[in-house]
Amino acid sequence: MNYKRRQKQLQNALSSARLDALLISHLPNIRYLCGFTGSAAALLVTEKQCVFFSDGRYMAQARREVSGARIVIGKTAPLASLAEWLKSRKAVARNLKRTGFEGDYVSFAAYKTLTKVMPPSIKLSPASHMVESIRIIKDCDELAAVRKAAELGASLFDRALEVIRPGIKETDVAAEMQHTASKSGAEAMSFSTIIAAGERSALPHGRASGQPIPPDGFVVCDFGVILGGYCSDRTRTVYVGRPSMEARSAYEAVREAQQAALHAVRPGQKLGEVDGVARNMLKKHKLAKYFTHSTGHGVGLEIHEAPRIAAGQEDQLKPGMVITIEPGVYLPGKFGIRIEDMAVVTETGCEVLAPSSKELIVC
Amino acid sequence: MNYKRRQKQLQNALSSARLDALLISHLPNIRYLCGFTGSAAALLVTEKQCVFFSDGRYMAQARREVSGARIVIGKTAPLASLAEWLKSRKAVARNLKRTGFEGDYVSFAAYKTLTKVMPPSIKLSPASHMVESIRIIKDCDELAAVRKAAELGASLFDRALEVIRPGIKETDVAAEMQHTASKSGAEAMSFSTIIAAGERSALPHGRASGQPIPPDGFVVCDFGVILGGYCSDRTRTVYVGRPSMEARSAYEAVREAQQAALHAVRPGQKLGEVDGVARNMLKKHKLAKYFTHSTGHGVGLEIHEAPRIAAGQEDQLKPGMVITIEPGVYLPGKFGIRIEDMAVVTETGCEVLAPSSKELIVC
Repeated sequence: MNYKRRQKQLQNALSSARLDALLISHLPNIRYLCGFTGSAAALLVTEKQCVFFSDGRYMAQARREVSGARIVIGKTAPLASLAEWLKSRKAVARNLKRTGFEGDYVSFAAYKTLTKVMPPSIKLSPASHMVESIRIIKDCDELAAVRKAAELGASLFDRALEVIRPGIKETDVAAEMQHTASKSGAEAMSFSTIIAAGERSALPHGRASGQPIPPDGFVVCDFGVILGGYCSDRTRTVYVGRPSMEARSAYEAVREAQQAALHAVRPGQKLGEVDGVARNMLKKHKLAKYFTHSTGHGVGLEIHEAPRIAAGQEDQLKPGMVITIEPGVYLPGKFGIRIEDMAVVTETGCEVLAPSSKELIVC
Repeated sequence: MNYKRRQKQLQNALSSARLDALLISHLPNIRYLCGFTGSAAALLVTEKQCVFFSDGRYMAQARREVSGARIVIGKTAPLASLAEWLKSRKAVARNLKRTGFEGDYVSFAAYKTLTKVMPPSIKLSPASHMVESIRIIKDCDELAAVRKAAELGASLFDRALEVIRPGIKETDVAAEMQHTASKSGAEAMSFSTIIAAGERSALPHGRASGQPIPPDGFVVCDFGVILGGYCSDRTRTVYVGRPSMEARSAYEAVREAQQAALHAVRPGQKLGEVDGVARNMLKKHKLAKYFTHSTGHGVGLEIHEAPRIAAGQEDQLKPGMVITIEPGVYLPGKFGIRIEDMAVVTETGCEVLAPSSKELIVC
C-alpha cells in the first residue's frame, strides 16, 4: 500500500479545509493512512509530518506496521499521549492553531477531555469526511485487496449450497460458511451472516437464527469476509422446495432490478439515479413498495462506507469507487428476496466482482 | 429479563442526577433496558415513561422484542425521530427541561445535530455511566445467561486441545473453536480469538495469525462466545513440546498469581487491591515487570465493561459483579503466559464460572 501518497493527499486537502493539522482517531482511517491494524491509536497529520500514537501493548506491532509516520508510544490513551506530546513541543504546537478532529467519531465526552488536555493555543475544529473522501476512490493496491476479498467471499456460497436443506438450522448454515472462510484465510466475517429462511426471509436484517429451514420457501444468504483488511459483501437468494409462480416472478423482478441498476453504474451517473433505476424496475412489477431499503453502499476497509446509493443522493459515481448493488423485496409474512453484487466503477461502466449466474437456484 | 425493574432503577436514578429524562443511544444499554437487539434505536426514559425509537426495517422485530416501552417507528434515524416526536408533543417536551445524553457514546457531530433538532426548551446535558452503573450488578436472569455463556465458552478449549499440534496454523485452531461455538448455538465470538504460539505468545493481543504452531513453545488461547446476548471470556495457556524449567516456573507463577487474585475477590475489596494481589505474587517471582496490563474487567452484554480491576481503582467489589481475573507475563522475544477465568462476586467471596484444573497442559 502506498501510504506516503495517501498522506500527501490528505496534507494537500488540509489547506483547502483551512486546517493546520488533522487529528485522526477513527481506526480504519488510521489503518488507511499508515497501515496500523491494532485497536488503540491516534494519528496527527500536519502539513509537514505524520505522528502516530499508541500504547505499550502495541509497541512491537506499531514498529512492524506503521509506515510514513513517526511513532510515539505513550503511557496513557493515544489522544492523551498526543496532547502531552504537543505540550512538550511548543514550536510544533504554535503552528497548529486550527486543528481538525473527526467529529463523527470522537465522542462528546472525548471532545471535552481533549479541549482540556490540548495546548490552549490550539483551536479544535470538527472536520468531517476528510479521510473518507480520499478513501472513497480505491487505489490499485486496494482494488487488488477488494477483489481477493470478494472472490473468497463469493466462494462461501458454494458451501452454503452444499448444506442448505429443509431441517438444517440457519445458524448451522452460517457456521459452515464461516468455517470455510476461516480455513481459507479470512480474518473474520465482515458482518454477522444473514441466513433468513421461509417467512424470516422477509426480514431485511434476519441474521441467522436457530430456526430450521422450512420445507418450502426462499432462503436469503447475505455474507462477507474480511481479507487483508478489506471487506466483501454479497447476497444470494435460493428457493427450497417448489416455488409458486408468484415467488418465481418476484425473484425475476429483483433479478431484473439488480441487473438494470448494475447497467446504470458508470462515471458521472448520480447515485440517486442508480437507486431510481432499481426502484423503477420493481415498480413495473408492482413490487416497489416492498423495496424498503436503499440500493447499495460503498465497501472497503469498512463494510459500510461512502458512497450511499440511495434516493436523493446527488453525488456522482467516479472511477475507483467500490459499491454494492442490492435491491430486495420483503413481503411481510410471506417471503423476501435480495440479490447483491459488489462492483468497481471503471472508466466506462462497472466491473462486477466475482460474477456468477443469478438465475433462481431451487434446492 | 425483568425490564420493568431495570427501567424503574434508572428512573429512580434520574432525580438524583437532577435530570428530567435520559436519552439512550448506546445499543447494549437499550437492549438491557427494553430487550431490543437490532442495530438502530434510541430510547427516551423519563420519570413516567419509556419511549423506544427505530426505523422501518425493525418494525416487526421491535414489536416482538421491546418490553416496557412505547414503540415509535420513524422514517429517519432514531435520534432524529425522537426529536420529531418530542416536537409534536409540547406537553411532554415542556417537562423535560434537563435531558441527559450519553456523552461517551454520542459523537460530537451527532451532539451538534441533536442540539439543532431538539425542541429549544430542552437543555441537553452529558450524563455518564447512568445505565452502566446499574448494569455493573447483574440480576438473576443475567447471571443465568452469563453462566451459560461461560460454560459454552469454556467447552471450546476442549476442541482447541484436540487440534493444537506443531504445524497447524493458529487461524485453523481458531476456526475449529469458532465452528464448535456456532454449532453449539453461540450467536458469535465475543472477540477475535487469540491463538498466539511460540514467540507470538508474548504479544498480549496476538489474535490468531497464519503462523503454524512451532514445535516448541507456549500457546496462549484467549476466547469467548456471545450466547443469549451475554459474553464469555477465558484464557488458557498450554505448552507444545518440552517446557524448560524457566517456562514451567513462569507458568506456575502466573497460576499462583491468578489463584491468589481469585481468592482476594470478595465484597468490599477494592478493585486496585485485587490487581495488587496478582502483581505482588508475580513480584515474588521477579516477573511483575512482564505483567503489562491490568488484572481484569467486567463482562456482560459487552466483552469489556465496568468495573476495571486495575492499579489505583478505589471502588469496591459488590455481590453480583461479573469480572475476569487474567494476569499474564510477556517476555518479549521469548514467551508469554496468561490464565483467565470469569467469576461472579458472591456475598462471601466469588464463584469461578466453569472452573477447571489450571495445571500446565503439555501437548
